[in-house]
Amino acid sequence: MSAVAFSLPQELCVILVRPRNPLNIGAVARAMANFGASQLRLVAPYDLAFREARSAVGAGELLARAEVYPSVAEAVADCALVVGTTAATNRSLGLPLTTLPAAAPQIIAAADTGKVALLFGSEKRGLTNQDMSYCHWLMRIPTTQPSPSMNLAQSVVVVLYELARTRNQTPARAESEAMPAGDRAANMQSLLRLAEVMHETLEACGYYSEAAAASAQEQLRRLLLRMKLSEADAEIVLGMFRQILWKLGRVP
Amino acid sequence: MSAVAFSLPQELCVILVRPRNPLNIGAVARAMANFGASQLRLVAPYDLAFREARSAVGAGELLARAEVYPSVAEAVADCALVVGTTAATNRSLGLPLTTLPAAAPQIIAAADTGKVALLFGSEKRGLTNQDMSYCHWLMRIPTTQPSPSMNLAQSVVVVLYELARTRNQTPARAESEAMPAGDRAANMQSLLRLAEVMHETLEACGYYSEAAAASAQEQLRRLLLRMKLSEADAEIVLGMFRQILWKLGRVP
Repeated sequence: MSAVAFSLPQELCVILVRPRNPLNIGAVARAMANFGASQLRLVAPYDLAFREARSAVGAGELLARAEVYPSVAEAVADCALVVGTTAATNRSLGLPLTTLPAAAPQIIAAADTGKVALLFGSEKRGLTNQDMSYCHWLMRIPTTQPSPSMNLAQSVVVVLYELARTRNQTPARAESEAMPAGDRAANMQSLLRLAEVMHETLEACGYYSEAAAASAQEQLRRLLLRMKLSEADAEIVLGMFRQILWKLGRVP
Repeated sequence: MSAVAFSLPQELCVILVRPRNPLNIGAVARAMANFGASQLRLVAPYDLAFREARSAVGAGELLARAEVYPSVAEAVADCALVVGTTAATNRSLGLPLTTLPAAAPQIIAAADTGKVALLFGSEKRGLTNQDMSYCHWLMRIPTTQPSPSMNLAQSVVVVLYELARTRNQTPARAESEAMPAGDRAANMQSLLRLAEVMHETLEACGYYSEAAAASAQEQLRRLLLRMKLSEADAEIVLGMFRQILWKLGRVP
């Protein structure tokens, strides 16, 4: 047989949020190498865990190049699509939740036009609500009910396998089908800037009750993520709110 | 969404040949529980490794019930199909070699009529030629070339995931189909009302140049349509702009 080999797009980022176990970090790096994913980011890893993982035998180039960020916001700033992973099976999280096989084609398609972040929470608690407020949507691996939750590194390898499987099954898109530049999805940096300007405007207008103020920015981020704005449209809406701010006598 | 859950046939046996690492044995048991496989067999495990894995916190019922055999021959004696796993990509092994996605439907079909053994070799050397001589055929996970070989427990979880996926293959549901009532797309009436209020706000702020004014409302409608707002989100955005209008001294 000819050697079928799977591979993943370069625009795929695996982001581990507050990982605690050096063995898991090492296993994630190995799984990424197995399926040809190359960008590993860590948000606030336990220092010792990261040092141990890095110094392990065979840790290799991927861990050496791994980037560390203090917050999820900074880790996803250059990403156009942020997908969170969860073991939950209901939508009480307030975000669209889909299964891995259903999500894979969307992720692969998005990686054609921008950077895609796959967010994995810590071994103990998974992603927090705060972490999820940076996600466009969530996905879960459809395991058997009831069963223990999956190990972190095992979730990562299953997700990467499914993505590689999907990518190598889908015929490469013809160039003509590729999105024109104007339709590129807004990256997180643009969205976060827009969220800030909107928040300032709404605050100036007395939009928020005192009770709502605490979660206001999180709500606003979620709203903008649901809109799936293109980069160009995010720019347009930003311009609108800057103009409103100016009219209100604030220099944006 | 209804909880899509994967499960595996009871006739599936995971057989680890000479495993050395208790962490791997534990991780395999957890992966099996995740996907609803229940029969674990070990051939000549390193005694200490097996004892440690068994006594680990949360090892659970599956490891307690795991059966130990002195040889591959005895471990596969009651199986109707024996499939070996390998990282090799050529056929010099003298056995048919296929990829996991191609093998999965055959394995699932075979498990309908008899016991199926999935053979995984030791961490260091994989399956020996002697082990393979008990296999009907071999399969491999199509990883990226060149890359390190996969970790034992990670290979097991990927194989189980693919088998469960194949067995439970339902047409992937579109995300929109899974949406509850709250996420119903905004109807045109809501969008047009929103476009009007936004337009009035922006006009009051001097957003439009004279040249742009003519096509302003059309542009705004197009923008809103691109956003694919839900009914609930359209309501939220409408509220925001009404508040801004009020602040500007206009009664919306």
